[in-house]
Amino acid sequence: MKVAIQGERGAFSHQAALELVPKARVVPCSRSVEVFDALDSAQADCAVVPVENTLAGPVGEHLDLLLERDVFIHQELRLRIEHNLIVAPGTKLKELRQVLSHPVALDQCRNFFRKHRKISPVAFYDTAGSVKHVVTNRLQDAGAIASHQAASEYGGEIVLQGLEDKKENYTRFFLIQKKKKISADANKTSLVFTLKNVAGALFKSLSVFALRELDLSKIESRPVRGRPWEYMFFVDILRGQDQAMHNALQHLGEIAGFVKVLGVYPQAK
Amino acid sequence: MKVAIQGERGAFSHQAALELVPKARVVPCSRSVEVFDALDSAQADCAVVPVENTLAGPVGEHLDLLLERDVFIHQELRLRIEHNLIVAPGTKLKELRQVLSHPVALDQCRNFFRKHRKISPVAFYDTAGSVKHVVTNRLQDAGAIASHQAASEYGGEIVLQGLEDKKENYTRFFLIQKKKKISADANKTSLVFTLKNVAGALFKSLSVFALRELDLSKIESRPVRGRPWEYMFFVDILRGQDQAMHNALQHLGEIAGFVKVLGVYPQAK
Repeated sequence: MKVAIQGERGAFSHQAALELVPKARVVPCSRSVEVFDALDSAQADCAVVPVENTLAGPVGEHLDLLLERDVFIHQELRLRIEHNLIVAPGTKLKELRQVLSHPVALDQCRNFFRKHRKISPVAFYDTAGSVKHVVTNRLQDAGAIASHQAASEYGGEIVLQGLEDKKENYTRFFLIQKKKKISADANKTSLVFTLKNVAGALFKSLSVFALRELDLSKIESRPVRGRPWEYMFFVDILRGQDQAMHNALQHLGEIAGFVKVLGVYPQAK
Repeated sequence: MKVAIQGERGAFSHQAALELVPKARVVPCSRSVEVFDALDSAQADCAVVPVENTLAGPVGEHLDLLLERDVFIHQELRLRIEHNLIVAPGTKLKELRQVLSHPVALDQCRNFFRKHRKISPVAFYDTAGSVKHVVTNRLQDAGAIASHQAASEYGGEIVLQGLEDKKENYTRFFLIQKKKKISADANKTSLVFTLKNVAGALFKSLSVFALRELDLSKIESRPVRGRPWEYMFFVDILRGQDQAMHNALQHLGEIAGFVKVLGVYPQAK
């Protein structure tokens, strides 16, 4: 199985891809949009994308792409994230003036930068790519934040472990494909909807689930691009395909401006 | 009035500060946390911070800091954002291989990067700072995305205007102070709350507003740091201090785990 990921080999998405598809051959893409393009052009059979992190919050661009593109969620994964400060062999912590990493990773290590005020965070397109950059160019005043796996992939040295602000740091990934498929044990549904411009619209739309005792595990609002101060809502419901869910979706159709089911899949442990 | 902003002179926050406080003397801070530190140490009388953009979504770190720090929202502003591609004098568009800017600005110009695949987006700590960097160092293969004002502030040349994906691009700013004050014309309330772990908790918490016909203009979920898969909710209600709002907040206290009123202020035009 060819699995498209955003980022280079050694990225957390690579690790997630291997957990979801044990014999995955990863197709690294530098930008998120290219991951979805790889599905459209059949250069990849599936893709693994992060959608939220328990410290930094949602990955907005991926939610937007799930809405825009014709893809379906087949599985979810909760991956424990451990950040390491990685340098070119021989570099010392006190020599560092810059630390490179993906903006989401930098955001998860805010306390490190508050403590080391001489070190500036520098956003890079990818965690593993930042290690590759620092090690390949033998930078002496720069380090990178990435996975243990990225350090061994590119021959970097770990000078500090557990850089994340909170140890309880997880990223949730989706395995997506072009093909719509729902496995027999699917018990969770992800969908997105917009609201009609009426008073209490969000409350009414959530009532279609609450009144049927369908539990909401997550709600995320995203701006509707081009319609300022209007929002769409990405919600996860702890229920697969059954009559109650079918009724709720029909009911939601009466209230919402637009509804798209993004996937029905087994809930991650 | 000394107004702390994140970013350098010429940043969109600078423009917002001047609209909110006409005779503002800005105190530029390179990081968001320093903006809030400047209020604590009285180096600034107030601060102006972006909280959401109509294309890119929320500024999560600022929401988190509004919760963590002892500050109060006094005003809001909706600023129209126009992005320009700015270069050192003489540089041509076709020479560019990198374009620097703040990650939120880069995210608002996704279509530009999809169209110009030879140009990589490079995250920088600030929009105006990226212009300063490109012009001061006379970079010939790099440009910056920032305001018109930043171009004139640092002597850059605008090679393309209106780089944003959608012309309807606004950023919402808050004017915050340490002092709690509510103006006579305040008709909007921002608050944050957590949920108790019971079924339908979000629906119940929104009912305290819906049942009193208090309109919600915005809801944003943020992860509770250190408690994976739990969320807090930032909501804006189109109502100031009156009996209905007082009752709703008391009612919310029965349902929510924690409630903090972040400010009561006049709604922006």
